[in-house]
Amino acid sequence: MPRYRLTLEYDGGPFVGWQRQSEGASVQATLEAALARFTGEAPETVAAGRTDAGVHALGQVVHFDLAREWKPQKICDALNFHLRPAPVSALAAEEVPADFHARLSATRRSYLFRILDRRAPPALDAGRAWHVGHRLDADAMHDAAQALVGHHDFTSFRATACQARSPLKTLDLLRVRRAGDEVQVDASARSFLHHQVRNLVGTLALVGEGKWSRRDVEAALAARARGAAGPTAPPEGLYLVKVGY
Amino acid sequence: MPRYRLTLEYDGGPFVGWQRQSEGASVQATLEAALARFTGEAPETVAAGRTDAGVHALGQVVHFDLAREWKPQKICDALNFHLRPAPVSALAAEEVPADFHARLSATRRSYLFRILDRRAPPALDAGRAWHVGHRLDADAMHDAAQALVGHHDFTSFRATACQARSPLKTLDLLRVRRAGDEVQVDASARSFLHHQVRNLVGTLALVGEGKWSRRDVEAALAARARGAAGPTAPPEGLYLVKVGY
Repeated sequence: MPRYRLTLEYDGGPFVGWQRQSEGASVQATLEAALARFTGEAPETVAAGRTDAGVHALGQVVHFDLAREWKPQKICDALNFHLRPAPVSALAAEEVPADFHARLSATRRSYLFRILDRRAPPALDAGRAWHVGHRLDADAMHDAAQALVGHHDFTSFRATACQARSPLKTLDLLRVRRAGDEVQVDASARSFLHHQVRNLVGTLALVGEGKWSRRDVEAALAARARGAAGPTAPPEGLYLVKVGY
Repeated sequence: MPRYRLTLEYDGGPFVGWQRQSEGASVQATLEAALARFTGEAPETVAAGRTDAGVHALGQVVHFDLAREWKPQKICDALNFHLRPAPVSALAAEEVPADFHARLSATRRSYLFRILDRRAPPALDAGRAWHVGHRLDADAMHDAAQALVGHHDFTSFRATACQARSPLKTLDLLRVRRAGDEVQVDASARSFLHHQVRNLVGTLALVGEGKWSRRDVEAALAARARGAAGPTAPPEGLYLVKVGY
Protein backbone atom coordinates (compact mmCIF):
# COMPACT_ATOMS: atom_id res chain seq x y z
CA MET A 1 0.00 0.00 0.00
CA PRO A 2 2.03 3.03 -1.22
CA ARG A 3 2.16 6.16 0.93
CA TYR A 4 2.15 9.61 -0.64
CA ARG A 5 3.33 12.96 0.61
CA LEU A 6 1.49 15.98 -0.71
CA THR A 7 2.27 19.70 -0.44
CA LEU A 8 -0.81 21.93 -0.29
CA GLU A 9 -1.56 25.62 -0.64
CA TYR A 10 -4.89 26.91 0.62
CA ASP A 11 -6.89 29.96 1.52
CA GLY A 12 -8.15 29.22 5.03
CA GLY A 13 -10.95 31.80 4.80
CA PRO A 14 -13.86 29.57 3.77
CA PHE A 15 -12.86 26.61 5.95
CA VAL A 16 -13.50 25.60 9.58
CA GLY A 17 -9.81 24.68 9.65
CA TRP A 18 -7.76 21.70 8.53
CA GLN A 19 -9.57 19.13 10.64
CA ARG A 20 -12.83 17.49 9.70
CA GLN A 21 -15.68 18.66 11.92
CA SER A 22 -19.35 17.82 12.26
CA GLU A 23 -20.37 21.13 10.68
CA GLY A 24 -18.73 23.27 8.01
CA ALA A 25 -16.24 22.57 5.26
CA SER A 26 -12.78 21.53 6.41
CA VAL A 27 -9.68 21.37 4.23
CA GLN A 28 -9.29 17.72 5.21
CA ALA A 29 -12.81 16.70 4.13
CA THR A 30 -12.46 18.74 0.91
CA LEU A 31 -9.17 17.03 0.10
CA GLU A 32 -10.42 13.55 0.99
CA ALA A 33 -13.53 14.02 -1.19
CA ALA A 34 -11.35 15.07 -4.14
CA LEU A 35 -9.03 12.07 -3.58
CA ALA A 36 -12.00 9.72 -3.45
CA ARG A 37 -13.40 11.09 -6.70
CA PHE A 38 -10.53 9.86 -8.87
CA THR A 39 -9.08 6.98 -6.85
CA GLY A 40 -12.34 5.32 -5.88
CA GLU A 41 -10.74 4.88 -2.46
CA ALA A 42 -11.49 6.65 0.80
CA PRO A 43 -8.04 7.41 2.22
CA GLU A 44 -7.65 9.23 5.50
CA THR A 45 -5.25 12.18 5.30
CA VAL A 46 -2.89 13.35 8.05
CA ALA A 47 -1.49 16.90 8.03
CA ALA A 48 1.70 18.30 9.54
CA GLY A 49 -0.18 21.21 11.12
CA ARG A 50 -3.86 21.26 12.03
CA THR A 51 -4.43 24.86 11.00
CA ASP A 52 -7.36 26.66 12.62
CA ALA A 53 -10.32 28.24 10.84
CA GLY A 54 -9.15 31.12 8.66
CA VAL A 55 -5.45 30.16 8.79
CA HIS A 56 -3.79 29.83 5.38
CA ALA A 57 -1.15 27.45 4.07
CA LEU A 58 1.55 27.99 1.47
CA GLY A 59 3.19 24.64 2.15
CA GLN A 60 1.07 22.35 4.32
CA VAL A 61 2.28 18.74 4.14
CA VAL A 62 -0.12 15.81 4.17
CA HIS A 63 0.29 12.05 3.88
CA PHE A 64 -2.13 9.29 2.89
CA ASP A 65 -2.07 5.68 1.67
CA LEU A 66 -3.63 4.36 -1.52
CA ALA A 67 -4.20 0.71 -2.44
CA ARG A 68 -3.19 1.37 -6.03
CA GLU A 69 0.04 2.91 -7.28
CA TRP A 70 -0.28 6.37 -8.87
CA LYS A 71 2.21 8.59 -10.64
CA PRO A 72 2.75 11.50 -8.21
CA GLN A 73 2.20 14.17 -10.88
CA LYS A 74 -1.04 12.45 -11.84
CA ILE A 75 -2.22 12.73 -8.23
CA CYS A 76 -1.51 16.49 -8.25
CA ASP A 77 -3.23 17.09 -11.57
CA ALA A 78 -6.29 14.98 -10.72
CA LEU A 79 -6.57 16.63 -7.30
CA ASN A 80 -6.38 20.11 -8.80
CA PHE A 81 -9.10 19.17 -11.25
CA HIS A 82 -11.40 17.71 -8.58
CA LEU A 83 -10.65 20.33 -5.90
CA ARG A 84 -12.12 23.11 -8.04
CA PRO A 85 -13.57 25.58 -7.14
CA ALA A 86 -12.32 25.19 -3.54
CA PRO A 87 -9.27 27.43 -2.89
CA VAL A 88 -6.97 24.46 -2.29
CA SER A 89 -4.12 23.60 -4.64
CA ALA A 90 -1.86 20.54 -4.73
CA LEU A 91 1.65 21.85 -5.34
CA ALA A 92 3.67 18.63 -5.29
CA ALA A 93 3.36 14.92 -4.55
CA GLU A 94 5.85 12.12 -4.08
CA GLU A 95 5.81 8.53 -2.95
CA VAL A 96 7.42 8.15 0.50
CA PRO A 97 8.41 5.20 2.71
CA ALA A 98 5.63 3.66 4.80
CA ASP A 99 7.14 5.08 7.99
CA PHE A 100 6.86 8.69 6.83
CA HIS A 101 4.29 10.55 8.93
CA ALA A 102 3.37 14.13 7.98
CA ARG A 103 2.91 15.19 11.61
CA LEU A 104 5.20 12.92 13.63
CA SER A 105 8.15 12.99 11.22
CA ALA A 106 8.19 16.78 10.94
CA THR A 107 11.24 18.43 12.49
CA ARG A 108 10.48 22.06 11.66
CA ARG A 109 7.42 24.20 11.07
CA SER A 110 7.70 27.71 9.68
CA TYR A 111 4.92 30.25 9.90
CA LEU A 112 4.46 33.78 8.59
CA PHE A 113 2.12 36.28 10.21
CA ARG A 114 1.20 39.38 8.20
CA ILE A 115 0.02 42.57 9.93
CA LEU A 116 -1.20 45.45 7.76
CA ASP A 117 -0.54 48.45 9.98
CA ARG A 118 -2.03 51.34 8.05
CA ARG A 119 -5.19 53.30 8.67
CA ALA A 120 -7.05 52.22 5.51
CA PRO A 121 -8.54 48.72 5.50
CA PRO A 122 -7.20 46.21 2.96
CA ALA A 123 -9.01 45.88 -0.36
CA LEU A 124 -6.75 43.29 -2.01
CA ASP A 125 -5.57 41.62 1.19
CA ALA A 126 -8.89 41.40 3.01
CA GLY A 127 -8.84 38.09 4.90
CA ARG A 128 -5.11 37.70 4.13
CA ALA A 129 -3.61 39.90 6.85
CA TRP A 130 -4.46 41.28 10.28
CA HIS A 131 -5.49 44.89 9.84
CA VAL A 132 -4.21 47.10 12.66
CA GLY A 133 -5.23 50.70 11.99
CA HIS A 134 -2.04 52.42 13.16
CA ARG A 135 1.72 52.13 12.71
CA LEU A 136 3.55 49.58 14.84
CA ASP A 137 7.21 49.82 15.88
CA ALA A 138 8.58 46.74 14.12
CA ASP A 139 12.09 47.21 15.54
CA ALA A 140 10.80 47.24 19.12
CA MET A 141 8.70 44.16 18.33
CA HIS A 142 11.73 42.35 16.94
CA ASP A 143 13.83 43.22 19.96
CA ALA A 144 11.16 41.99 22.39
CA ALA A 145 10.66 38.86 20.29
CA GLN A 146 14.25 37.82 20.97
CA ALA A 147 13.33 37.36 24.65
CA LEU A 148 10.99 34.57 23.54
CA VAL A 149 13.43 32.66 21.34
CA GLY A 150 14.85 29.49 22.88
CA HIS A 151 13.64 26.68 25.14
CA HIS A 152 10.86 27.93 27.44
CA ASP A 153 7.66 27.03 29.23
CA PHE A 154 5.19 28.74 26.86
CA THR A 155 2.10 28.32 29.08
CA SER A 156 1.43 32.07 28.78
CA PHE A 157 1.15 31.72 25.00
CA ARG A 158 -0.85 28.51 24.87
CA ALA A 159 -4.57 28.22 24.20
CA THR A 160 -6.39 27.01 27.30
CA ALA A 161 -7.81 24.21 25.12
CA CYS A 162 -4.31 23.11 24.03
CA GLN A 163 -3.93 19.35 24.33
CA ALA A 164 -0.12 19.12 24.17
CA ARG A 165 1.32 17.12 27.06
CA SER A 166 4.01 19.68 27.86
CA PRO A 167 4.14 23.49 27.54
CA LEU A 168 7.89 23.28 26.97
CA LYS A 169 8.89 24.19 23.42
CA THR A 170 11.99 25.45 21.66
CA LEU A 171 11.30 28.51 19.55
CA ASP A 172 14.10 28.66 16.98
CA LEU A 173 13.18 31.87 15.20
CA LEU A 174 10.92 34.83 15.88
CA ARG A 175 11.77 37.63 13.48
CA VAL A 176 9.81 40.83 12.98
CA ARG A 177 10.38 42.94 9.86
CA ARG A 178 8.75 45.90 8.17
CA ALA A 179 7.80 45.45 4.50
CA GLY A 180 6.09 48.62 3.30
CA ASP A 181 2.72 48.96 5.03
CA GLU A 182 3.16 45.53 6.58
CA VAL A 183 4.84 44.07 9.62
CA GLN A 184 5.81 40.46 8.93
CA VAL A 185 6.55 37.99 11.71
CA ASP A 186 8.44 34.78 10.86
CA ALA A 187 8.27 32.00 13.45
CA SER A 188 9.99 28.65 13.28
CA ALA A 189 10.16 25.69 15.67
CA ARG A 190 10.05 21.90 15.70
CA SER A 191 6.45 22.23 16.88
CA PHE A 192 4.14 24.82 18.36
CA LEU A 193 1.45 24.81 21.03
CA HIS A 194 -2.14 25.54 20.03
CA HIS A 195 -2.52 29.26 19.15
CA GLN A 196 1.12 29.84 20.09
CA VAL A 197 2.07 31.91 17.04
CA ARG A 198 -1.12 33.99 17.24
CA ASN A 199 -0.59 34.57 20.97
CA LEU A 200 3.04 35.57 20.41
CA VAL A 201 1.96 38.01 17.68
CA GLY A 202 -0.87 39.44 19.79
CA THR A 203 1.62 40.10 22.58
CA LEU A 204 4.26 41.59 20.29
CA ALA A 205 1.61 43.92 18.86
CA LEU A 206 1.31 45.46 22.34
CA VAL A 207 5.03 46.21 22.12
CA GLY A 208 4.57 47.63 18.61
CA GLU A 209 1.90 49.96 19.95
CA GLY A 210 4.21 51.18 22.71
CA LYS A 211 1.97 49.79 25.46
CA TRP A 212 4.41 47.07 26.47
CA SER A 213 8.20 46.90 26.77
CA ARG A 214 10.52 43.96 26.24
CA ARG A 215 10.53 43.58 30.05
CA ASP A 216 6.75 43.18 30.05
CA VAL A 217 7.11 40.38 27.48
CA GLU A 218 9.77 38.70 29.64
CA ALA A 219 7.47 38.97 32.67
CA ALA A 220 4.54 37.51 30.69
CA LEU A 221 6.67 34.52 29.68
CA ALA A 222 7.89 34.00 33.26
CA ALA A 223 4.35 34.17 34.67
CA ARG A 224 3.36 30.87 32.98
CA ALA A 225 -0.27 31.97 32.87
CA ARG A 226 -2.26 32.64 29.71
CA GLY A 227 -3.81 35.74 31.28
CA ALA A 228 -0.36 37.32 31.70
CA ALA A 229 0.28 37.62 27.94
CA GLY A 230 -1.47 39.63 25.22
CA PRO A 231 -4.55 38.75 23.19
CA THR A 232 -4.73 36.16 20.42
CA ALA A 233 -4.09 37.72 17.01
CA PRO A 234 -6.79 36.83 14.46
CA PRO A 235 -6.29 33.82 12.16
CA GLU A 236 -6.40 35.63 8.82
CA GLY A 237 -2.83 36.89 9.13
CA LEU A 238 -1.32 33.44 9.69
CA TYR A 239 0.29 31.25 7.01
CA LEU A 240 1.85 27.80 7.43
CA VAL A 241 4.77 28.38 5.07
CA LYS A 242 6.88 25.26 5.22
CA VAL A 243 7.32 21.97 7.02
CA GLY A 244 10.77 20.43 7.30
CA TYR A 245 11.58 16.73 7.72
CA MET B 1 -15.70 74.49 -4.60
CA PRO B 2 -12.71 72.54 -3.23
CA ARG B 3 -11.17 69.77 -5.32
CA TYR B 4 -9.87 66.58 -3.73
CA ARG B 5 -7.36 64.02 -4.85
CA LEU B 6 -7.91 60.50 -3.62
CA THR B 7 -5.65 57.42 -3.79
CA LEU B 8 -7.53 54.14 -4.11
CA GLU B 9 -6.74 50.45 -3.77
CA TYR B 10 -9.17 47.95 -5.21
CA ASP B 11 -9.69 44.36 -6.20
CA GLY B 12 -10.93 44.58 -9.78
CA GLY B 13 -12.43 41.08 -9.71
CA PRO B 14 -16.05 41.91 -8.90
CA PHE B 15 -16.20 45.05 -11.07
CA VAL B 16 -16.96 45.76 -14.72
CA GLY B 17 -13.97 48.10 -14.55
CA TRP B 18 -13.41 51.65 -13.35
CA GLN B 19 -15.94 53.28 -15.63
CA ARG B 20 -19.66 53.44 -14.90
CA GLN B 21 -21.63 51.23 -17.31
CA SER B 22 -25.29 50.53 -17.89
CA GLU B 23 -24.97 47.05 -16.32
CA GLY B 24 -22.79 45.73 -13.54
CA ALA B 25 -20.97 47.36 -10.64
CA SER B 26 -18.17 49.74 -11.58
CA VAL B 27 -15.55 51.11 -9.20
CA GLN B 28 -16.62 54.62 -10.21
CA ALA B 29 -20.31 54.10 -9.36
CA THR B 30 -19.38 52.32 -6.10
CA LEU B 31 -17.12 55.22 -5.09
CA GLU B 32 -19.64 57.89 -6.11
CA ALA B 33 -22.41 56.17 -4.15
CA ALA B 34 -20.18 56.05 -1.05
CA LEU B 35 -19.26 59.73 -1.49
CA ALA B 36 -22.93 60.68 -1.83
CA ARG B 37 -23.83 58.81 1.34
CA PHE B 38 -21.86 61.06 3.67
CA THR B 39 -21.58 64.32 1.72
CA GLY B 40 -25.17 64.52 0.53
CA GLU B 41 -23.66 65.63 -2.79
CA ALA B 42 -23.41 63.76 -6.08
CA PRO B 43 -19.88 64.50 -7.26
CA GLU B 44 -18.57 63.07 -10.50
CA THR B 45 -15.20 61.34 -10.10
CA VAL B 46 -12.39 61.26 -12.66
CA ALA B 47 -9.67 58.59 -12.52
CA ALA B 48 -6.09 58.63 -13.80
CA GLY B 49 -6.52 55.24 -15.46
CA ARG B 50 -9.78 53.70 -16.62
CA THR B 51 -8.92 50.17 -15.57
CA ASP B 52 -10.75 47.34 -17.36
CA ALA B 53 -12.91 44.67 -15.76
CA GLY B 54 -10.81 42.48 -13.46
CA VAL B 55 -7.83 44.87 -13.35
CA HIS B 56 -6.67 45.80 -9.85
CA ALA B 57 -5.32 49.02 -8.39
CA LEU B 58 -2.80 49.59 -5.64
CA GLY B 59 -2.65 53.34 -6.25
CA GLN B 60 -5.37 54.60 -8.57
CA VAL B 61 -5.74 58.38 -8.37
CA VAL B 62 -9.12 60.09 -8.59
CA HIS B 63 -10.30 63.68 -8.32
CA PHE B 64 -13.69 65.19 -7.52
CA ASP B 65 -15.17 68.47 -6.34
CA LEU B 66 -17.34 69.00 -3.28
CA ALA B 67 -19.40 72.08 -2.43
CA ARG B 68 -18.44 71.84 1.20
CA GLU B 69 -14.94 71.74 2.70
CA TRP B 70 -13.93 68.43 4.30
CA LYS B 71 -10.87 67.39 6.24
CA PRO B 72 -9.04 64.98 3.89
CA GLN B 73 -8.63 62.27 6.55
CA LYS B 74 -12.36 62.53 7.29
CA ILE B 75 -13.08 61.85 3.60
CA CYS B 76 -10.91 58.70 3.72
CA ASP B 77 -12.44 57.40 6.92
CA ALA B 78 -16.03 58.10 5.86
CA LEU B 79 -15.40 56.53 2.44
CA ASN B 80 -13.90 53.41 3.99
CA PHE B 81 -16.93 53.12 6.25
CA HIS B 82 -19.45 53.56 3.42
CA LEU B 83 -17.52 51.51 0.82
CA ARG B 84 -17.84 48.33 2.89
CA PRO B 85 -18.13 45.52 1.95
CA ALA B 86 -16.91 46.44 -1.56
CA PRO B 87 -13.18 45.64 -1.99
CA VAL B 88 -12.25 49.30 -2.47
CA SER B 89 -10.15 51.21 0.04
CA ALA B 90 -9.36 54.93 0.24
CA LEU B 91 -5.65 55.14 1.09
CA ALA B 92 -5.12 58.91 1.12
CA ALA B 93 -6.87 62.17 0.32
CA GLU B 94 -5.72 65.74 -0.03
CA GLU B 95 -7.13 69.03 -1.20
CA VAL B 96 -5.60 70.09 -4.52
CA PRO B 97 -5.74 73.22 -6.71
CA ALA B 98 -8.77 73.53 -8.99
CA ASP B 99 -6.61 72.90 -12.07
CA PHE B 100 -5.48 69.46 -10.88
CA HIS B 101 -6.93 66.74 -13.11
CA ALA B 102 -6.37 63.10 -12.18
CA ARG B 103 -6.15 61.99 -15.82
CA LEU B 104 -4.84 65.01 -17.73
CA SER B 105 -2.26 66.14 -15.13
CA ALA B 106 -0.71 62.67 -14.79
CA THR B 107 2.84 62.42 -16.12
CA ARG B 108 3.58 58.78 -15.30
CA ARG B 109 1.61 55.58 -14.87
CA SER B 110 3.22 52.47 -13.41
CA TYR B 111 1.72 49.02 -13.79
CA LEU B 112 2.66 45.60 -12.47
CA PHE B 113 1.64 42.38 -14.20
CA ARG B 114 1.95 39.14 -12.22
CA ILE B 115 2.28 35.77 -13.97
CA LEU B 116 2.19 32.61 -11.84
CA ASP B 117 4.17 30.17 -13.96
CA ARG B 118 3.86 26.90 -12.08
CA ARG B 119 1.81 23.83 -12.87
CA ALA B 120 -0.54 24.02 -9.87
CA PRO B 121 -3.31 26.61 -10.02
CA PRO B 122 -3.27 29.42 -7.44
CA ALA B 123 -5.26 28.94 -4.23
CA LEU B 124 -4.39 32.19 -2.49
CA ASP B 125 -3.77 34.26 -5.63
CA ALA B 126 -6.77 33.12 -7.65
CA GLY B 127 -7.95 36.18 -9.57
CA ARG B 128 -4.77 38.05 -8.59
CA ALA B 129 -2.32 36.69 -11.17
CA TRP B 130 -2.32 35.12 -14.64
CA HIS B 131 -1.82 31.41 -14.20
CA VAL B 132 0.44 29.93 -16.90
CA GLY B 133 0.93 26.23 -16.23
CA HIS B 134 4.61 25.98 -17.19
CA ARG B 135 7.89 27.76 -16.49
CA LEU B 136 8.67 30.87 -18.54
CA ASP B 137 12.16 32.15 -19.33
CA ALA B 138 12.05 35.51 -17.53
CA ASP B 139 15.51 36.52 -18.72
CA ALA B 140 14.59 36.02 -22.38
CA MET B 141 11.37 37.98 -21.78
CA HIS B 142 13.32 40.84 -20.21
CA ASP B 143 15.76 40.94 -23.07
CA ALA B 144 13.00 41.01 -25.69
CA ALA B 145 11.13 43.64 -23.67
CA GLN B 146 14.02 46.07 -24.14
CA ALA B 147 13.23 46.16 -27.88
CA LEU B 148 9.88 47.74 -26.96
CA VAL B 149 11.19 50.46 -24.63
CA GLY B 150 11.29 53.95 -26.11
CA HIS B 151 9.19 56.05 -28.48
CA HIS B 152 7.32 53.81 -30.93
CA ASP B 153 4.15 53.36 -32.93
CA PHE B 154 2.45 50.76 -30.72
CA THR B 155 -0.38 49.90 -33.14
CA SER B 156 0.51 46.21 -32.85
CA PHE B 157 -0.13 46.35 -29.09
CA ARG B 158 -3.27 48.46 -29.13
CA ALA B 159 -6.82 47.19 -28.70
CA THR B 160 -8.77 47.62 -31.93
CA ALA B 161 -11.33 49.55 -29.89
CA CYS B 162 -8.67 51.98 -28.58
CA GLN B 163 -9.84 55.57 -28.90
CA ALA B 164 -6.48 57.33 -28.51
CA ARG B 165 -5.78 59.78 -31.34
CA SER B 166 -2.25 58.55 -31.90
CA PRO B 167 -0.61 55.12 -31.54
CA LEU B 168 2.70 56.84 -30.72
CA LYS B 169 3.74 56.37 -27.12
CA THR B 170 6.98 56.45 -25.14
CA LEU B 171 7.45 53.35 -23.04
CA ASP B 172 9.90 54.30 -20.28
CA LEU B 173 10.25 50.98 -18.51
CA LEU B 174 9.44 47.37 -19.32
CA ARG B 175 11.21 45.12 -16.82
CA VAL B 176 10.69 41.38 -16.42
CA ARG B 177 11.86 39.64 -13.24
CA ARG B 178 11.45 36.26 -11.60
CA ALA B 179 10.17 36.24 -8.00
CA GLY B 180 9.83 32.63 -6.86
CA ASP B 181 7.01 30.98 -8.80
CA GLU B 182 6.12 34.31 -10.39
CA VAL B 183 7.25 36.37 -13.33
CA GLN B 184 6.62 40.05 -12.64
CA VAL B 185 6.48 42.65 -15.39
CA ASP B 186 6.83 46.34 -14.47
CA ALA B 187 5.72 48.84 -17.09
CA SER B 188 5.91 52.60 -16.85
CA ALA B 189 5.01 55.40 -19.27
CA ARG B 190 3.37 58.81 -19.35
CA SER B 191 0.30 57.07 -20.75
CA PHE B 192 -0.66 53.78 -22.35
CA LEU B 193 -2.94 52.73 -25.20
CA HIS B 194 -5.98 50.58 -24.43
CA HIS B 195 -4.85 47.02 -23.51
CA GLN B 196 -1.24 48.00 -24.22
CA VAL B 197 0.27 46.44 -21.08
CA ARG B 198 -1.77 43.25 -21.46
CA ASN B 199 -0.82 42.99 -25.14
CA LEU B 200 2.86 43.55 -24.33
CA VAL B 201 2.69 40.84 -21.65
CA GLY B 202 0.83 38.40 -23.91
CA THR B 203 3.55 38.85 -26.52
CA LEU B 204 6.42 38.53 -24.05
CA ALA B 205 4.85 35.31 -22.76
CA LEU B 206 5.43 33.83 -26.23
CA VAL B 207 9.11 34.66 -25.76
CA GLY B 208 9.05 33.12 -22.27
CA GLU B 209 7.63 29.92 -23.75
CA GLY B 210 10.43 29.80 -26.33
CA LYS B 211 8.00 30.19 -29.24
CA TRP B 212 9.17 33.69 -30.13
CA SER B 213 12.58 35.38 -30.19
CA ARG B 214 13.46 39.01 -29.55
CA ARG B 215 13.55 39.41 -33.34
CA ASP B 216 9.96 38.23 -33.60
CA VAL B 217 8.98 40.90 -31.06
CA GLU B 218 10.85 43.54 -33.05
CA ALA B 219 9.09 42.42 -36.21
CA ALA B 220 5.70 42.53 -34.46
CA LEU B 221 6.35 46.11 -33.36
CA ALA B 222 7.47 47.13 -36.84
CA ALA B 223 4.40 45.55 -38.47
CA ARG B 224 2.04 48.14 -36.91
CA ALA B 225 -0.83 45.67 -37.03
CA ARG B 226 -2.56 44.19 -33.98
CA GLY B 227 -2.59 40.76 -35.62
CA ALA B 228 1.20 40.73 -35.79
CA ALA B 229 1.66 40.65 -32.00
CA GLY B 230 0.72 38.07 -29.38
CA PRO B 231 -2.58 37.58 -27.56
CA THR B 232 -3.97 39.83 -24.83
CA ALA B 233 -2.99 38.64 -21.37
CA PRO B 234 -5.97 38.30 -19.01
CA PRO B 235 -6.90 41.22 -16.73
CA GLU B 236 -6.47 39.48 -13.37
CA GLY B 237 -2.67 39.80 -13.44
CA LEU B 238 -2.67 43.57 -13.94
CA TYR B 239 -2.27 46.18 -11.19
CA LEU B 240 -2.22 49.97 -11.57
CA VAL B 241 0.51 50.59 -9.01
CA LYS B 242 1.18 54.31 -9.05
CA VAL B 243 0.37 57.52 -10.87
CA GLY B 244 2.90 60.33 -10.95
CA TYR B 245 2.16 64.06 -11.36
